[in-house]
Amino acid sequence: MANIFPSRRIRRTPFSKGVEAAGVKGYTVYNHMLLATVFESLEYDCAHLKEHVQVWDVSCERQVSIKGPDALRLLKLISPRDMDRMADDQCYYVPTVDHNGGMLNDPVAVKLAADHYWLSLADGDLLQFALGIAIARGFDVEIVEPDVSPLAVQGPRADDLMARVFGDAVREIRFFRYKRLAFQGVELVVARSGWSKQGGFEIYVEGADLGMPLWDALFEAGEDMHVRAGCPNTIERIESGLLSYGNDMTRENTPYECGLGKFCNSPEDYIGKAALAEQAANGPARQIRPLVISGEIPPCLDAWPLFADGRQVGQVGSAIFSPEFGVNAAIGMVDQSHWAPGTVMEVDTGAGILPATVQDRFWR
Amino acid sequence: MANIFPSRRIRRTPFSKGVEAAGVKGYTVYNHMLLATVFESLEYDCAHLKEHVQVWDVSCERQVSIKGPDALRLLKLISPRDMDRMADDQCYYVPTVDHNGGMLNDPVAVKLAADHYWLSLADGDLLQFALGIAIARGFDVEIVEPDVSPLAVQGPRADDLMARVFGDAVREIRFFRYKRLAFQGVELVVARSGWSKQGGFEIYVEGADLGMPLWDALFEAGEDMHVRAGCPNTIERIESGLLSYGNDMTRENTPYECGLGKFCNSPEDYIGKAALAEQAANGPARQIRPLVISGEIPPCLDAWPLFADGRQVGQVGSAIFSPEFGVNAAIGMVDQSHWAPGTVMEVDTGAGILPATVQDRFWR
Repeated sequence: MANIFPSRRIRRTPFSKGVEAAGVKGYTVYNHMLLATVFESLEYDCAHLKEHVQVWDVSCERQVSIKGPDALRLLKLISPRDMDRMADDQCYYVPTVDHNGGMLNDPVAVKLAADHYWLSLADGDLLQFALGIAIARGFDVEIVEPDVSPLAVQGPRADDLMARVFGDAVREIRFFRYKRLAFQGVELVVARSGWSKQGGFEIYVEGADLGMPLWDALFEAGEDMHVRAGCPNTIERIESGLLSYGNDMTRENTPYECGLGKFCNSPEDYIGKAALAEQAANGPARQIRPLVISGEIPPCLDAWPLFADGRQVGQVGSAIFSPEFGVNAAIGMVDQSHWAPGTVMEVDTGAGILPATVQDRFWR
Repeated sequence: MANIFPSRRIRRTPFSKGVEAAGVKGYTVYNHMLLATVFESLEYDCAHLKEHVQVWDVSCERQVSIKGPDALRLLKLISPRDMDRMADDQCYYVPTVDHNGGMLNDPVAVKLAADHYWLSLADGDLLQFALGIAIARGFDVEIVEPDVSPLAVQGPRADDLMARVFGDAVREIRFFRYKRLAFQGVELVVARSGWSKQGGFEIYVEGADLGMPLWDALFEAGEDMHVRAGCPNTIERIESGLLSYGNDMTRENTPYECGLGKFCNSPEDYIGKAALAEQAANGPARQIRPLVISGEIPPCLDAWPLFADGRQVGQVGSAIFSPEFGVNAAIGMVDQSHWAPGTVMEVDTGAGILPATVQDRFWR
């Protein structure tokens, strides 16, 4: 692939200088912002993440700030998830859908106050959907993208590293909960969350001034822990079955198809509820499945169609070789007729047709 | 900058094979899709565009298709422009704003039928705004991103090249009008439009099958015209004062600030009308201005603040050296106090503070 071309529209982050100094080798663009994709190599980065601790610039997880008397009212309209159960210090994974139940995004909602929420986005301007609803309904809310840039600390040593910078209070943060902890006198939202299954935190850094000081403090504190700059790792996330909006699911898919039906439990009359009711009752006609593809696979640039008996029965949205498990791990959307574990299909990778076998479960 | 990392989320286009074979050297990401930024060099590409003819893969100008009995009703709500004046074969530049008059996008609307429009987008998911409004209002419209990929033919020989492929009817297409013309038996919308001031067309290619055949047909027909693969050229578009959403303007700006007030003429009660009324009457407090920056400038990766007497009086969103005019041409948003032609300010480029002078007009 060619180089990425610089412009203001492809926004840099408060941590870009640190990412560049760490020798980033690849970028993607996510919410109109740079996101590193590889430092040493995908394989090295992955192995290191599983053993040590990494600091990730995930500023591109932009926030939609929804604030005002009607904030909860708006959220209840756009969230299939029961927002009344949300604790004051909780983060909620919220697949958000249109009137047909088609996925628009799958943000993490952070409850800052009874009348103030952040939606930490996957790739897509969900702000515009929330804004459209709010304007049309005349809701009393302010909807903006605040200057907030998450920095993730991920890996088995994440607790130890974070404790050195934020104190032992970080150890008491429960999964998908947050505390406000001080760095250089400024309180930051620190949540136990992140886009890996290696454990860790996301620090919601407000403004740009604290960016590099925090980055540097983490690297200084973690020197003896082999801390490295990292990023969401394609190998680890596919092994873990962490879905990527735009890769594994789009507006063509419902939360039930994505295995996210358990997050659709709102008693409110939310947008898409009627459309999801049928799938809630009968289950979806296709669903996300872990697959193993035999042979040698190219990079997965397009959806790869899955065939059986000459008929398309699904597609693959992400695939990569896993050194740890010694297989080509893939995430596919597979028709009910072929989604049983052990079912073998053919996948057209564009560079050849290869066997693809449904697995029992993701690798972790 | 580092390489761009491949994934399905960063979508390829029906013309990607042609773009790659032509030796693309740089990409950006625009509407979750690859957009070439440079082939030979920015300077060479620019000079060639001004003399010959180029074929541009601008598939990333994704369409929002709005279709149904309430299509016009929805458009009148989200368009500051008078949609009733739109002819059946017309394309309309439509700065779209929120309830505060803040720019959300600046698409080109294409009227396909009285109940069917495409919005050809700048970078941003305006689909989600339109969808939010339509759902909240209960409008009877279908809003989707169709599989439509514009291919632009730009440059002084564009009419000649297009005539060889589509017939002489292309010559009669007026500016921002379209005709349906056949290629290999399939009718395509062909508009006289495009993101340069060198003249030319945009062909709205539906589906992927016709992509490479059309690409190849244009190159075959244009061999003796020195046709080359190209892309929106940063130098040419800054010289021409073609604004880029995300670079030169954001939701922080109104159409009046962007010099787009003339497009806000709708008699309807559209979203943002009240907020724009004050600026319509009194003019904006800051506005887009062409600037010349003296000295040597780095790539413009961030907004560069403009200072006068130690006070910030604006910012630069795009800047590049123009070989044709022998100056660093820039697009800035400048406060009224300093926007008069000839006014000299200081711009902080991150790599040094340089003089910046307001110009009378853009270079073409």
